[in-house]
Amino acid sequence: MLLSGTVIVDAETVIHDGAVVVADDRIVAVGDRSTCLERYPDHERDEYDLLAPGTVGAHVHSVQSLGRGIADDTALLEWLFDYVLPMEASLSAEEMRAAAELGYLEMIESGTTTCIDHLSVHHADEAFEAARDLGIRGRLGKVMMDKEAPPGLLEDTDDALSESERLIRRYHGVEGGRIRYALTPRFAVSCTEACLRGTRELADAYESVMIHTHASENRDEIETVEEETGRRNVHWLNEVGLTGEDVVLAHCVWTDETEREILAETGTNVTYCPSSNMKLASGVAPVHDYLDRGITVALGNDGPPCNNTLDPFTEMRQASLLQKVDRLEPQALPAPTVFEMATVNGARAAGFDRVGNVREGWKADLIGLETDITRATPLHDVLSHLVFAAHGDDVRFTMVDGEVLQRDGEVVVADAEEIRARAREFAADLDVAP
Amino acid sequence: MLLSGTVIVDAETVIHDGAVVVADDRIVAVGDRSTCLERYPDHERDEYDLLAPGTVGAHVHSVQSLGRGIADDTALLEWLFDYVLPMEASLSAEEMRAAAELGYLEMIESGTTTCIDHLSVHHADEAFEAARDLGIRGRLGKVMMDKEAPPGLLEDTDDALSESERLIRRYHGVEGGRIRYALTPRFAVSCTEACLRGTRELADAYESVMIHTHASENRDEIETVEEETGRRNVHWLNEVGLTGEDVVLAHCVWTDETEREILAETGTNVTYCPSSNMKLASGVAPVHDYLDRGITVALGNDGPPCNNTLDPFTEMRQASLLQKVDRLEPQALPAPTVFEMATVNGARAAGFDRVGNVREGWKADLIGLETDITRATPLHDVLSHLVFAAHGDDVRFTMVDGEVLQRDGEVVVADAEEIRARAREFAADLDVAP
Repeated sequence: MLLSGTVIVDAETVIHDGAVVVADDRIVAVGDRSTCLERYPDHERDEYDLLAPGTVGAHVHSVQSLGRGIADDTALLEWLFDYVLPMEASLSAEEMRAAAELGYLEMIESGTTTCIDHLSVHHADEAFEAARDLGIRGRLGKVMMDKEAPPGLLEDTDDALSESERLIRRYHGVEGGRIRYALTPRFAVSCTEACLRGTRELADAYESVMIHTHASENRDEIETVEEETGRRNVHWLNEVGLTGEDVVLAHCVWTDETEREILAETGTNVTYCPSSNMKLASGVAPVHDYLDRGITVALGNDGPPCNNTLDPFTEMRQASLLQKVDRLEPQALPAPTVFEMATVNGARAAGFDRVGNVREGWKADLIGLETDITRATPLHDVLSHLVFAAHGDDVRFTMVDGEVLQRDGEVVVADAEEIRARAREFAADLDVAP
Repeated sequence: MLLSGTVIVDAETVIHDGAVVVADDRIVAVGDRSTCLERYPDHERDEYDLLAPGTVGAHVHSVQSLGRGIADDTALLEWLFDYVLPMEASLSAEEMRAAAELGYLEMIESGTTTCIDHLSVHHADEAFEAARDLGIRGRLGKVMMDKEAPPGLLEDTDDALSESERLIRRYHGVEGGRIRYALTPRFAVSCTEACLRGTRELADAYESVMIHTHASENRDEIETVEEETGRRNVHWLNEVGLTGEDVVLAHCVWTDETEREILAETGTNVTYCPSSNMKLASGVAPVHDYLDRGITVALGNDGPPCNNTLDPFTEMRQASLLQKVDRLEPQALPAPTVFEMATVNGARAAGFDRVGNVREGWKADLIGLETDITRATPLHDVLSHLVFAAHGDDVRFTMVDGEVLQRDGEVVVADAEEIRARAREFAADLDVAP
């Protein structure tokens, strides 16, 4: 396939009147349009105003999608234990499937091509199957909770680990490596030391399996961990093996100097979730400090009950604006830095190689946007536009691994109407009041 | 016209399966659909998923629209004096008209039905004419700068005031009162005492003319005012007559206790501009304190060079999220409070009576949104949806004073393609580098 338009190769390179040629799952050529047309005259053609690498949602809860808007204006632990966990506990396999499909649908429609997805304790198979069917690239994991969990979610430590291992064997690396596994203890508050140490053992036992958990999102959370373990949260995670290049820690809002050193020294990846941190009033992550230390910082929307959308453009905008106002520094997180977070840094955090740039030999994970709209007029700078003014609604084309998932604004891998209708039906029966 | 759908009457009342009946410029009935259909069987009909009061952009610079994205990552005074003012100074009448049309087009498309518009020093007629033609409700004013202004914008005090008076006589109250005048000194830094006192005199001389200016947005700004006048900014404005129920002060980020007392005692209106305050790293306005004191707080997008869009839904979301994270208080500015700011409070600040609710006898300023989209699925609470997940792209219908401006997603009062094309053409010739 030969796609033409203005091509954003990476945060530094833009090709006007350019083209991208895709064969199988790879980009085979990127350059100016006329040269590409000459070299590949027989390829199927399509055209979009702007072509860019697909974005990476590096911390998301697709299976919370049925709970969009159920718990506005509440703090993290109340939000979690009174609303979101009871909802997760109540979901049947069918409902979990519907929730995951709704989440992936929203991501595909709005330009997310890769996600790191924190599922739930039960029915993780449903999300894996939905991700396979809908074609998104994902690092997914079943949640483990063997301590401090509401009825219906609390598990035996061994069960949590053995179910995780079953899922690794079943799904890790399927679809040509498009779907991969992340061991997913919920957070230190809800997991025993045995569970956390078991997580590290399993991660080491299977090649390229990663670890994904929440860390230091909220002050009550870090206090609880400190009371229970006598250590600051990241120190504790480090002690039980939950740091390293194969670990993605979501949030990391409340870390001290010594914890930041650990993150940097161990090469641990951090996912910044600005909208979620704002809406749950968690705080502002010290993103500039992380970047200064060379930590890979990715970007995530978190879940629909705390965002309330999965739009990656809203998140890019928020990422920059929140740092600017928090530091009273208008130069903070400029557009190119945010764009890197949302693309190639996210892919690195998720452990996907050659994903996140539009470059020869890289994976064909692409999006096409329209810019013949008022919000994009005039268009002085495409990166500025993408970060500060674009919106998921502008995305008209989505491709993962060379497969077209959305074309001309229509998702082609699933019946979007049907997914929404099923989600509405299940959501109407949810018992979400605390 | 009989419009049916879920009707948001105000921040507290939602009618499912409802209808709104419009005759001339007024809402003549609001209620359940079947009753309305029975009572008004011969009215032209239309249907949208969600009907709501149009939003009020209570601080905007439509004529800066050609500068969308020209000065990202800069602080207020640099942003203003190195980029935005030179751009404003350079605009011809034709370019000013194109910029205003682009701004109003974006507002109409995304659901803003009333604006308080801070124009520029020259060619204000062009914006008034554009507002008349495009049908938006507006409180507009020519900017006055008789001190501290770049070449091309600096005016004589008398000229600034007499030109303002000419515009009042020409446009204040035209279109059945849809267009009204606000005397618009830029800010205390750029206006002499004579200009500010003259502003108050003129406002008192003409019935229902208001005053609109920037105040205490930035720390450098308030320091400058304090150096020059020996007073905190709001004290100074109060002394020269720029407080009161007929005054709208944009921003008010850096006010102390005594200034807040003045704002409350004088009934001065405040416009909160969260995205602009974040992007320019100005700071966080003490909105809760203002609300606690009974101050009318409205909401504004400010201009495209500092936002970078005029989407009122982005601004509502931002309004709440910024307060939550700043106060580390998840209950801060819940959806209904924000919705009131963006509708009826904005109308009150702008001095338009019976605007901002969907209520019998009130002005027919309405918007219709679609919710059969993934981002609105499921839809547990329509107000939560509007504030936290909706977007200007969802707006398919816009009516002001009973006149349809947009229907089925198409603006009917202007040629949107042509406005965008003209804006692109002029923007390409802008000399915006400092």
